[in-house]
Amino acid sequence: MNRLWIENGTFVTMDDSRPVLKGHMVVEGDRIVYLGEEPPSPAPEGAERLNGQGLVFMPGLINTHAHSAMSLLRGYSDDEALQVWLEQKMWPMEAKFTDDDVRWGTSLAVAEMLKSGTTTFVDMYDRMHIVAEVVEQSGIRGVLTRGVIGLCPPDVQTEKLIEAKQFAKDWNGQAGGRITTMMSPHAPYTCPPDYIERIVEAAHELDVPLHTHMSESLAEVEQNVKDYGRRPVEHLDKLGFFSKPALLAHAVHLNDEEIALLAERGAAISHNPASNLKLASGVARVPQLLKAGVTVSLGTDSAASNNNLDLFDEIRLAALIHKGVSGDPTAVPASEALKLGTVYGARALGKHSLLGVLKPGMKADFIAIDAEQPHFYPQTEMVSHLVYSGSGRDVKHVWIDGRQVVSSGECLLIDEAKVKAEAQSCFERLLAR
Amino acid sequence: MNRLWIENGTFVTMDDSRPVLKGHMVVEGDRIVYLGEEPPSPAPEGAERLNGQGLVFMPGLINTHAHSAMSLLRGYSDDEALQVWLEQKMWPMEAKFTDDDVRWGTSLAVAEMLKSGTTTFVDMYDRMHIVAEVVEQSGIRGVLTRGVIGLCPPDVQTEKLIEAKQFAKDWNGQAGGRITTMMSPHAPYTCPPDYIERIVEAAHELDVPLHTHMSESLAEVEQNVKDYGRRPVEHLDKLGFFSKPALLAHAVHLNDEEIALLAERGAAISHNPASNLKLASGVARVPQLLKAGVTVSLGTDSAASNNNLDLFDEIRLAALIHKGVSGDPTAVPASEALKLGTVYGARALGKHSLLGVLKPGMKADFIAIDAEQPHFYPQTEMVSHLVYSGSGRDVKHVWIDGRQVVSSGECLLIDEAKVKAEAQSCFERLLAR
Repeated sequence: MNRLWIENGTFVTMDDSRPVLKGHMVVEGDRIVYLGEEPPSPAPEGAERLNGQGLVFMPGLINTHAHSAMSLLRGYSDDEALQVWLEQKMWPMEAKFTDDDVRWGTSLAVAEMLKSGTTTFVDMYDRMHIVAEVVEQSGIRGVLTRGVIGLCPPDVQTEKLIEAKQFAKDWNGQAGGRITTMMSPHAPYTCPPDYIERIVEAAHELDVPLHTHMSESLAEVEQNVKDYGRRPVEHLDKLGFFSKPALLAHAVHLNDEEIALLAERGAAISHNPASNLKLASGVARVPQLLKAGVTVSLGTDSAASNNNLDLFDEIRLAALIHKGVSGDPTAVPASEALKLGTVYGARALGKHSLLGVLKPGMKADFIAIDAEQPHFYPQTEMVSHLVYSGSGRDVKHVWIDGRQVVSSGECLLIDEAKVKAEAQSCFERLLAR
Repeated sequence: MNRLWIENGTFVTMDDSRPVLKGHMVVEGDRIVYLGEEPPSPAPEGAERLNGQGLVFMPGLINTHAHSAMSLLRGYSDDEALQVWLEQKMWPMEAKFTDDDVRWGTSLAVAEMLKSGTTTFVDMYDRMHIVAEVVEQSGIRGVLTRGVIGLCPPDVQTEKLIEAKQFAKDWNGQAGGRITTMMSPHAPYTCPPDYIERIVEAAHELDVPLHTHMSESLAEVEQNVKDYGRRPVEHLDKLGFFSKPALLAHAVHLNDEEIALLAERGAAISHNPASNLKLASGVARVPQLLKAGVTVSLGTDSAASNNNLDLFDEIRLAALIHKGVSGDPTAVPASEALKLGTVYGARALGKHSLLGVLKPGMKADFIAIDAEQPHFYPQTEMVSHLVYSGSGRDVKHVWIDGRQVVSSGECLLIDEAKVKAEAQSCFERLLAR
């Protein structure tokens, strides 16, 4: 069994009982087995030793909303309204996607995520078996789901549902447990109510969580009220969506009653600040959601609406924008912002007993930050420094399930040169097609 | 004379007539002498040759508002209201600053700025001769000004004014022209009107521009109305502030009349989005300012309220927040956001005939970005990629006045290890004092 002993490191644990600790951590197999100020005693036999001097170790970041294959469309359409961007730019290009496009787009995204410290990501897309293969090979942890759009004839709906169920069944627990699955109607505005109910039923059948886009734009909320006589949260509630653990991406436009209902139902939010700003969807009511006890996590959304997958950017945005927009400088303090990207992410995925905190018994999903840089000096408040000054480019090493997947900024299990070249070719072929 | 020939590079020029160009650039002495798709003909004799493959070259970034020495206080006080942060945390610590603190705090800031691609910065602080020495040695370009607070007895006011004038006079044009100076009342709320008038008079005497903080918080605008019967823009106008080129930091709370008056007077703004969000000051009306024809540039403010000095962060924030807050996804498009950090910065400092654009005749202040990274793929829209995916950590090389000051991410004229160690000691001594 592989053993790793990190000596003389600084550990930002996300464990409230000892948030920052200078000392030692020991990993055995896929687990953290020791974390403390004193060296482990007895010393772990045959352990690889790593000098942690100048490094800050923290839990791997958790990105709870992505469409990885869309990294191929980074920069393809900027500075447009959500519906124009989606319906006139994204969907026509995505309709041309082949297996290869999904493979190399996803690989590009996973390389970017790993190098910037994300160890777990949620991916909602199609051709998900290809995404799963990329996850398997790259060493990342993935919560994968075939997002289905129900704006199609009943037989096509059924076909998509069968495919989504089959994927969720086949891949749940694969890659040594690194892959788990969910069921996902794309959104209330793209799925008729009875179709959502069938997807919920499938989630029960397979015992997996549910994921969807919800209340991203004001127009979509107004349309929901017009079509179904109620706002999206109540609409989904009536369709049984919250009868399983549910993760809602965006949730920008919520009223007080909806926030209370989400808290009551135990639903979790994937807050996507960069995407919501870029598409001018608005600013989610994160301080109110947190106050109500709703679990708020962070997502990048796709690189086509962000346009990067560096979760440190989302963490900093979450710490900054809610202060500026609410006028309350104490809103989403640094320590809370860092939780959004780690421990709350784990909670949003029902994985908080395994991920999001550095402590014995947890999975060894963690990252090492090069703290020997001017923007981390004076070396005092590391949580503040990580949130307000940190970047994915500061990530030096990454481990997932105790296995090192990034070393000195290089992916160990991904051929990055090939991924970049293939992604470039795919995009050029898409343009020409 | 030193000659540099960059071959096969991608150039984001900020020149509207040819925004992105693949080809060659030649530098002679402190100037760009050639930029074109074809190799220079005849080939420049004795030139150092640099293979630009995989690199994106662009003008060095221009940070139009900083208090560099305050980098010592990075992370010292977060998530507090402006007045608490300023009056209870910053001012008491700054009152303890010695020459050494200013020297090492400024050196830390300059190292961070150079490494993240800033080639020109505006610094408003005191003990400015020390800041000037750091600028001289480090190779950065600085527009320096002794900010004076007039909440003191008349003789102290006079003493400060004399010191500020002497500094502005002694250092203007020094360091081979890399240093220029300004005169700066700290803010309308910290300087009595007659004191501002004396500072304006000094700016005329020395023929230098004026800089001040203005309308950062709503409270300060309301206080101005209460004390002087008018809002800050009109107040400054009456005091003659706009009779010289003027740079106004923050300018968050402006009404339509103030925006029109600023446009008429040709005053420039230093927009500081991260600082304004973090201190919950609000969101400046940048789309309206740009529409009115006001020159808007970008500043980081100090690392105590940001908490980093990476201007790419400000560029991205400027591109994102004004969309999200206004609801208009076309607000501050990527190309405009990049201008805020380059060509408009140069204009705000009256240096647009020398800086902010890559073209023959301009100063050779430019940076090279490592574009061979997943977050810059597919390599299509480089302006979009720089704005929405770029970071100061992507900067590989930096040249100022034709001299290379950063090579492969390392400062050539600053002993970074010493700067970090000294900054750490200074902060620890400040805490203990």
